[in-house]
Amino acid sequence: MEQFAIADVDRASASHRVVIVGGGFGGLYAAKTLGRFKHIKTTLIDKRNFHLFQPLLYQVATGKLSPGDISSPLRAILSHYRNVTVLMDEVKDIEPEQHQVIVQTGTVPYDTLVVATGVSHHYFGNEQWAEVAPGLKTVEDAIEMRRRIFRAFEVAEKETDPEKRRAWLTFVVVGGGPTGVELAGALGDLAHHALKHDFRSIDTRETRILLLEGVDRILPPYPPELSALAAKSLEHLGVTVQTQSFVIGITEDTVTVRRDDQTETIPAKTVLWAAGVRASGMSKVLADRAGATLDRAGRVIVNPDLSVPGQPDIFVVGDLAHYAHQDNQPLPGVAPVAMQQGAYVAKLIQRRLQGQELPPFHYSDGGSLAVIGQNAAVANLGRLKLSGFPAWLIWVFVHIYYLIEFDNKLIVMIQWFWNYFSRKGGSRLITQEKSPLNPSELGGKIG
Amino acid sequence: MEQFAIADVDRASASHRVVIVGGGFGGLYAAKTLGRFKHIKTTLIDKRNFHLFQPLLYQVATGKLSPGDISSPLRAILSHYRNVTVLMDEVKDIEPEQHQVIVQTGTVPYDTLVVATGVSHHYFGNEQWAEVAPGLKTVEDAIEMRRRIFRAFEVAEKETDPEKRRAWLTFVVVGGGPTGVELAGALGDLAHHALKHDFRSIDTRETRILLLEGVDRILPPYPPELSALAAKSLEHLGVTVQTQSFVIGITEDTVTVRRDDQTETIPAKTVLWAAGVRASGMSKVLADRAGATLDRAGRVIVNPDLSVPGQPDIFVVGDLAHYAHQDNQPLPGVAPVAMQQGAYVAKLIQRRLQGQELPPFHYSDGGSLAVIGQNAAVANLGRLKLSGFPAWLIWVFVHIYYLIEFDNKLIVMIQWFWNYFSRKGGSRLITQEKSPLNPSELGGKIG
Repeated sequence: MEQFAIADVDRASASHRVVIVGGGFGGLYAAKTLGRFKHIKTTLIDKRNFHLFQPLLYQVATGKLSPGDISSPLRAILSHYRNVTVLMDEVKDIEPEQHQVIVQTGTVPYDTLVVATGVSHHYFGNEQWAEVAPGLKTVEDAIEMRRRIFRAFEVAEKETDPEKRRAWLTFVVVGGGPTGVELAGALGDLAHHALKHDFRSIDTRETRILLLEGVDRILPPYPPELSALAAKSLEHLGVTVQTQSFVIGITEDTVTVRRDDQTETIPAKTVLWAAGVRASGMSKVLADRAGATLDRAGRVIVNPDLSVPGQPDIFVVGDLAHYAHQDNQPLPGVAPVAMQQGAYVAKLIQRRLQGQELPPFHYSDGGSLAVIGQNAAVANLGRLKLSGFPAWLIWVFVHIYYLIEFDNKLIVMIQWFWNYFSRKGGSRLITQEKSPLNPSELGGKIG
Repeated sequence: MEQFAIADVDRASASHRVVIVGGGFGGLYAAKTLGRFKHIKTTLIDKRNFHLFQPLLYQVATGKLSPGDISSPLRAILSHYRNVTVLMDEVKDIEPEQHQVIVQTGTVPYDTLVVATGVSHHYFGNEQWAEVAPGLKTVEDAIEMRRRIFRAFEVAEKETDPEKRRAWLTFVVVGGGPTGVELAGALGDLAHHALKHDFRSIDTRETRILLLEGVDRILPPYPPELSALAAKSLEHLGVTVQTQSFVIGITEDTVTVRRDDQTETIPAKTVLWAAGVRASGMSKVLADRAGATLDRAGRVIVNPDLSVPGQPDIFVVGDLAHYAHQDNQPLPGVAPVAMQQGAYVAKLIQRRLQGQELPPFHYSDGGSLAVIGQNAAVANLGRLKLSGFPAWLIWVFVHIYYLIEFDNKLIVMIQWFWNYFSRKGGSRLITQEKSPLNPSELGGKIG
């Protein structure tokens, strides 16, 4: 194994070396903040070469935006911080005693380590469902969802058997959290607006969209009145919201749901998974190597300063961190928490080098927003609760504000502006399959 | 095999049925023109659900635009022509006696057939090169090129062996036609502008870009003075133009070139193929079933009215047609020829139904344009020959004008405008590979 020239240079100088693993919101905001402290040498390691604006990934899955619209090259974002190095590689292990991480092609030494590798979706022990009910975490996931959604309409258009056609026009979204609500709303928009003039044999407005949630209301972290308003908006878009429903089986043709001890099997060709997340593999490495304690979802239980108990030089930020020192319940896995944690840890590292400390991390909650279709949303801004068009407008501006690069911001804003009037969805490409219309191939994993 | 409900409806009415195979420029312009003749029922069959603006595909390959920026859903483009049906399917065969085409899932009857399936790239009998030197015809091709280009810089950044690093920073473009020139220019832009601040171990301005052409100058269809100006612009961007050079071998590590009876083997990890095209599979079907005569590249030799000799009901338009009734040499395989041919055939069909005829097809040549990097191009507008910035401006406006949907036009224009000032290239995602940085995997077919 070789050590990188970059690392050698760092070691030669006396400056403090920070290694950040993961270029999501947590890692990126840590890197950007550390970039301002020129005496700290930061290396950001990610297996992808771009930061993904995950809150808008459902818009890629439903053909409204292109992957490039919500992605920014990490190198471009960080290029003007000359003390920050980006390394495209995959971290395989951590060696806390040697103060180094093992990547695919060598080792990288650190003085302080920040782990921000996030979560992936999770099938609660039914991992075989992954093939028939894709989740939504990566660009590739979104393209796979997009392919399945638009292919379903194409196959339905050609199907002459009414029952089979019905199954192709039935979409089931599993999970009534923000992602599930946003996916179901976007599907409603597609079926009732964007696609309504595009087919000749089917009427896309007859599409059945089912949103399944296990507890008694959708958007459970929101106040009940906003959950009710969200459900109403969804129904207005043709989405059937079904709560207290548990998925007990998924095949390539059906979804089986249990509700009040009744079991129903629904013929449906397209099932989208938005039901659960699990910590990324780094949490197990932290448990094995650094003695970290994990919660049920595999997240790392952290100290009030976001360090791993017993490891003052290792921090965990973002979705991977279980931070329960505020309001006695873990902070939600949302972008603002990750951004604030990343920036906090960066400042703490800088303070410690000056022999100072910072008060414990405190999440400043600006509110939560979930969008339902083209011009409705719910916003929980503390005492102010909004829904409908005003909430949607806030949602649009908040998201544009945070889209990291100026060009992305501008493009996405114009795309939205145009979509709002045209409702066409220009990015609904079916890609990545040589023979996209052979229904017998639909079951298997398609590259 | 079943016949579609769509086709049954058509048959019931007495209207003329046109089937178009292929939704590129030729097929799409035929469909749009036929859409205006309400008594003609048109079915456009394509295996993809979108029209691709191929002249800009090299910008996707080099990370400037997203696939969605240069693609438009066929259904959306044609939705307001209620007499036009889009069928996403693959044509397997043609039965001229029965007047029907065989698709994957049934048969589609026609009165008039228009074949516009274009060409794909071609390795002159060295099909094994496809794995190490990808061509550029589909969105997937462009994403594969993009992945290889940006991964090469990433691997070079980590490589400590100077010779290997040099090989990762050597890009060879095979073929000095418009696509090769545009690819090489865009690579020069990337290396010398977009990426120059993004790496810490390598200086991207040391990238070696080699453009190989077999004949004695690049852009052979252009006047010699424009070829010379194009070569000069490319060299300004760090591209080495090497003419009278023949590729005789490509491996995952090298390109072997013969020039003046000398053979040179160049270590290069990234080879991009822009050297040749071959007719799509439909030409062989037309030869077998309709007695069509093919030229050396497999294109169908057509009558002055673009019909297949002996088959007055079958037309071939676009790149697949060999049309030599003008100036005694076949028309070039460019978008304006295909558009004009598609529209011509549509009008001819309409005229014939009225018992009238049209004069033979005549290509009205508005000129040719090829772009070299960010703000240089060459334009051959008959007597007016332009190069540099004025030619680039014309190129920008012509391409925006033809980008088919308004939203795409606007987005692409803004993206260009922004790229022109920032030169960042926001869409340079490396996608579709689980483990993108293991050099041992580079040889095989990925993704």
